Amino acid sequence: MSSSEIDNLAISTIRLLSVDQVAKANSGHPGAPLGLAPVSHFLWKQMNFNSKNPKWLNRDRFILSNGHSVALLYSLLHLFGYPLTLDDLSNFRQLGSKTPGHPESETPGIDVTTGPLGQGIANAVGLAIAQQYVAATFNEENFTISDNYTYAFLGDGCLMEGVSSEAMSLAGHLKLSKLIAIYDDNHISIDGSTDVAFTEDVTKRLESYGWNVIWVKDGNNDFSAIQSAIEEAKSSIDKPTLIKLTTKIGFGSLNEGTAGVHGSPLKPDDIKQLKTKFGFDPTKTFQVPQEVYGFYKNTTLKKGELANENWDKLVDDYQEAYPEKGQLLKRLISEQLPENWKSFLPTYKPGDKSLASRKLSEIVLQNIHQVLPELIGGSADLTGSNLTRWTNAVDFQPPSTGLGDYSGRYIRYGVREHAMGAIMNGIAAYGYNLKPYGGTFLNFVSYAAGALRLSALSGHPVIWVATHDSIGLGEDGPTHQPIETLAHFRAIPNLMVWRPADGNETSAAYLKAISTNKTPSVIALTRQNIPQLEGSSIEKALKGGYTLVKTEYPDIILVSTGSEVSLCVEAAKHLKEEKNINANVVSLPDFYSFDEQSDEYKLSVFPNGVPILSVEVLSTVGWSKYSHAQFGIDRFGASGPADELYEYFGFTIEGVSEKATKVVDYYKGKEIISPLNKPF
Amino acid sequence: MSSSEIDNLAISTIRLLSVDQVAKANSGHPGAPLGLAPVSHFLWKQMNFNSKNPKWLNRDRFILSNGHSVALLYSLLHLFGYPLTLDDLSNFRQLGSKTPGHPESETPGIDVTTGPLGQGIANAVGLAIAQQYVAATFNEENFTISDNYTYAFLGDGCLMEGVSSEAMSLAGHLKLSKLIAIYDDNHISIDGSTDVAFTEDVTKRLESYGWNVIWVKDGNNDFSAIQSAIEEAKSSIDKPTLIKLTTKIGFGSLNEGTAGVHGSPLKPDDIKQLKTKFGFDPTKTFQVPQEVYGFYKNTTLKKGELANENWDKLVDDYQEAYPEKGQLLKRLISEQLPENWKSFLPTYKPGDKSLASRKLSEIVLQNIHQVLPELIGGSADLTGSNLTRWTNAVDFQPPSTGLGDYSGRYIRYGVREHAMGAIMNGIAAYGYNLKPYGGTFLNFVSYAAGALRLSALSGHPVIWVATHDSIGLGEDGPTHQPIETLAHFRAIPNLMVWRPADGNETSAAYLKAISTNKTPSVIALTRQNIPQLEGSSIEKALKGGYTLVKTEYPDIILVSTGSEVSLCVEAAKHLKEEKNINANVVSLPDFYSFDEQSDEYKLSVFPNGVPILSVEVLSTVGWSKYSHAQFGIDRFGASGPADELYEYFGFTIEGVSEKATKVVDYYKGKEIISPLNKPF
Ligand SMILES: [Ca+2]
Ligand SMILES: [Ca+2]
Repeated sequence: MSSSEIDNLAISTIRLLSVDQVAKANSGHPGAPLGLAPVSHFLWKQMNFNSKNPKWLNRDRFILSNGHSVALLYSLLHLFGYPLTLDDLSNFRQLGSKTPGHPESETPGIDVTTGPLGQGIANAVGLAIAQQYVAATFNEENFTISDNYTYAFLGDGCLMEGVSSEAMSLAGHLKLSKLIAIYDDNHISIDGSTDVAFTEDVTKRLESYGWNVIWVKDGNNDFSAIQSAIEEAKSSIDKPTLIKLTTKIGFGSLNEGTAGVHGSPLKPDDIKQLKTKFGFDPTKTFQVPQEVYGFYKNTTLKKGELANENWDKLVDDYQEAYPEKGQLLKRLISEQLPENWKSFLPTYKPGDKSLASRKLSEIVLQNIHQVLPELIGGSADLTGSNLTRWTNAVDFQPPSTGLGDYSGRYIRYGVREHAMGAIMNGIAAYGYNLKPYGGTFLNFVSYAAGALRLSALSGHPVIWVATHDSIGLGEDGPTHQPIETLAHFRAIPNLMVWRPADGNETSAAYLKAISTNKTPSVIALTRQNIPQLEGSSIEKALKGGYTLVKTEYPDIILVSTGSEVSLCVEAAKHLKEEKNINANVVSLPDFYSFDEQSDEYKLSVFPNGVPILSVEVLSTVGWSKYSHAQFGIDRFGASGPADELYEYFGFTIEGVSEKATKVVDYYKGKEIISPLNKPF
Repeated sequence: MSSSEIDNLAISTIRLLSVDQVAKANSGHPGAPLGLAPVSHFLWKQMNFNSKNPKWLNRDRFILSNGHSVALLYSLLHLFGYPLTLDDLSNFRQLGSKTPGHPESETPGIDVTTGPLGQGIANAVGLAIAQQYVAATFNEENFTISDNYTYAFLGDGCLMEGVSSEAMSLAGHLKLSKLIAIYDDNHISIDGSTDVAFTEDVTKRLESYGWNVIWVKDGNNDFSAIQSAIEEAKSSIDKPTLIKLTTKIGFGSLNEGTAGVHGSPLKPDDIKQLKTKFGFDPTKTFQVPQEVYGFYKNTTLKKGELANENWDKLVDDYQEAYPEKGQLLKRLISEQLPENWKSFLPTYKPGDKSLASRKLSEIVLQNIHQVLPELIGGSADLTGSNLTRWTNAVDFQPPSTGLGDYSGRYIRYGVREHAMGAIMNGIAAYGYNLKPYGGTFLNFVSYAAGALRLSALSGHPVIWVATHDSIGLGEDGPTHQPIETLAHFRAIPNLMVWRPADGNETSAAYLKAISTNKTPSVIALTRQNIPQLEGSSIEKALKGGYTLVKTEYPDIILVSTGSEVSLCVEAAKHLKEEKNINANVVSLPDFYSFDEQSDEYKLSVFPNGVPILSVEVLSTVGWSKYSHAQFGIDRFGASGPADELYEYFGFTIEGVSEKATKVVDYYKGKEIISPLNKPF
């Protein structure tokens, strides 16, 4: 079979496997796979990966940012030897199958979970950043530890989403030359022709960001242009590349070039003519010519397996040539943190200086960064407010800027919170146990809700350093003061939401956030000073919640977080002195970690028989889970000095004491069941 | 005083008033006001507005997208005759003052609340859309009802935010020629020089979107270039315009051109030299030369007052010339809905066809659109899925596209949820009682969290048509299935979050969402069919919650929303038949509206003595407010057919009955206090 014959056969196989999946499921998106099959074939056949070892660290990455085209990806994974059988393909979009409706990173060969538009391309920027960082850190003459490319497919929808603009602008600034995005310019989105809403000049836009743009005018038929474009893109040395690939959506279908083929299965007659047109048996489904398996096996797979072997050897040899860096490299590859790293976390005792928890966070970063080269941080243009940069940090910048280099670990994200979130997901997905953190005001983490949710769904252990966490930020006012924010984040599965009350709790938050390899964290931090508490410790805080002030026969439990914990401690004293009310104070810095504790422990903190009042200067939503009464702020904030705001909203010693007294009076004589006790 | 002398004096006055505010508050942002004072003076002096009637509908709009520069805006409002005194200015950023830390739309003369970056410019796009719509609908020869400009200031930060990319791309597509954005190109953001993160070619980027770009190279000193640029921008007939105004941040300060002047008060010495330099008394604060008051009064204010008078007369005359449209115009100006509009809302009775609530929503829109020309809708590229477009709707498009015209009421937003949210805020802020709605999947409303929060904070009554509201969307899987979403939205103050259970409840949701002029709504709608319930009605649903199935001596109350209500009705029957358990079923389509009811009513729905179980296929967070036990989904969803997912997660008649039985057993013999009864 000639080279062009096998190309054509492979492309047809990819197309029809994808169409068959969608038809079998009677659900899915056949249009983009039909249009993207040629470029997929040519891209993948030259890609460097080892499907027998899908996590090989120097593999080229492939991101399907237009994740609804996932049938295409499953076809490729199957044909290129990943553990995905034709049976799996025929179970497309079925419950419990290995082939869900959008790419999920649990599937071997899938680098990141995509589907929500714009995320994948931003993840790709993160993967490319991580690659540059690893390369700049470890590569030496004759020891190219890292040189992989990051490829991403994206469609009109991805380009319309703001998160892609943010990420692609930053990628251009950072001159990520090993990032190659392939834009499926098919002139169709769900509402029909892109003429109805998307008429910008994409080439010009990407060039304005500092990208190299190559146009393949006929992505359906001009195979040589496709291959040249890929080669040209790979040779770029100072810019990321966008290949604008003009295609017909649903190529070959009777409805090619229309929105009708985007998101609905093709009709049986259409599939028949398609198979006939491509020389396949129209009566059969899921057909793969042996030549196609053989071709990929003897070219791409063989090459990839060998490359993986050579790389393993290279890493071994590196140990001898560069013993110190070699040891670090080995440690990162093994995804083990240094044994002693926790000892670098600061601890505090009562009487130590009151500090803003954003400052306490800065001290943590200052202390641990040297022992944790896997920590890569940044801020969305709020460095001086978030306090996210340790002294003399090197910026991650193209060396040509003179502002840093690619071994730098401090990323200047610009005012791009959403991209920051998605880029952190990409960095975490790269491997080497990289731990990305990013700073912004807590209120603006919400701009990145789309990315944060995917961190949690995919289990990327990224860390949000979310400062200015309440009305305590003061004068900036209600546009900047979070109210609903923690209720929102606490409702996201698999997300730690820390609001530490002092230095020890801040250290605990970082301890857990960095130790995990499956759960992202938001660490909510104050702008204003808070005291070091008596009775706090890292160990206790790691449990997510603990009794800070314990009385023998409590009349009430005050449960609180962050800046309100010390207020509750003072209120407890006041209650004792003024009303002879015994109050326990519980600090609950992270619901997620607390929920992981044993029932016995949790009930020791929140026992039956004692009424519980929650105190937090944020929405009360979610607090009924741990309390009988809630004192919070269920309206928007206000602009003014922080202490005046606390007073205005009643969060004073007297204000808390008054609420507590009402709770004690109300529950007197009533049967009080712990809110933790539930029928199921 | 010569024209150039008065210009200089006015500009210095604006600068120093702004600096004095920040200094007095010891908090705020002096840098941008110093750089933007010249353009502010020249822009405002030619603007068309009447500060004696700040809400005059044909005024030019002014949006400060870089809202942290608000001291500048307060200076302008004061000098241009708005009710803001020097005392107000000297109370900048104080609790309860009229001059909070960021612009809030309650202040007369402030069109929209800004501060969160990128929002204002997107609001401006909405204001410009609304203007074009009103103009296309009402303007006739010699009757120019609407021809105002929309001006927006924005900075580097706004341009970095994805929401601005989305909005500005759409504005270019829509050829909104009366939109004029002035970009403060000062090369500084909080992290320092824009060289660290923002090196894109803004001119080229905006041109790629279809904008006209004018560069004023010296925005500090070249007053004639500033004025020409404004004139040129106003003459654009087919493109929005960006004036790229290169300035020095903190112009005149000892630290001009550095990040140091961005967000901190100037030092006393610096202020002194600044005042001396500008010819002001360095020992005095809040100085306004009478010439400046006089100049603005005799030019801008006189002109504006007259224009307002003429416009009022024009509207009166219009009544005679175009009686039918005149009546509509008058009604819109008076912000009254047509008296009979509610009668167009469909009602249903049990036995009527089961339909997806997204379809029920489509029927509402189909029925009411003719009687409500104030309704302007669209979708973020999911029209066929959201069902947001009535038959034969005209698209809001530039006539030159041949795809619609500016009197069209259907906006093709593209895949730009965040911009859609912010644009809807702008449309609602325009006046004429315009009611914007926008469709996307519920899960992707989260992409617009930044805008949604501002809808609620500002009281813009925008409506999100949020379809595919749960695992019931099926195969698209966990990336598309909301879990935390309603918990998040329910925690936002001043937001209705509807999840209607049938046709009557869907009509009720629209009734309330359209009637209010102060509260935005999210209407969560199913992809899958749901039956018409026995016992539902618009009237009952308007209360936000009501007892749908009532038994005389209930052993349990099942409270639910949307697609799970009918499931609870079936479970109640099953419980009676199988276990002789009497179950009430409460439908609670909107927490916000329910919370507005009297305590008596609420306690009649959730009385003491009966255990309550909530049933909703979403996060349980927030449900403890109304229930003792919660059945929900506190993990991410899965990909598969909807009915299989419901079964997998236990949301079946048997599954709900089993949970209910456990609740009844658990609370047997215990004192049961209604969750609504609280100590305070
Ligand atoms: Ca497309
Ligand atoms: Ca700037």
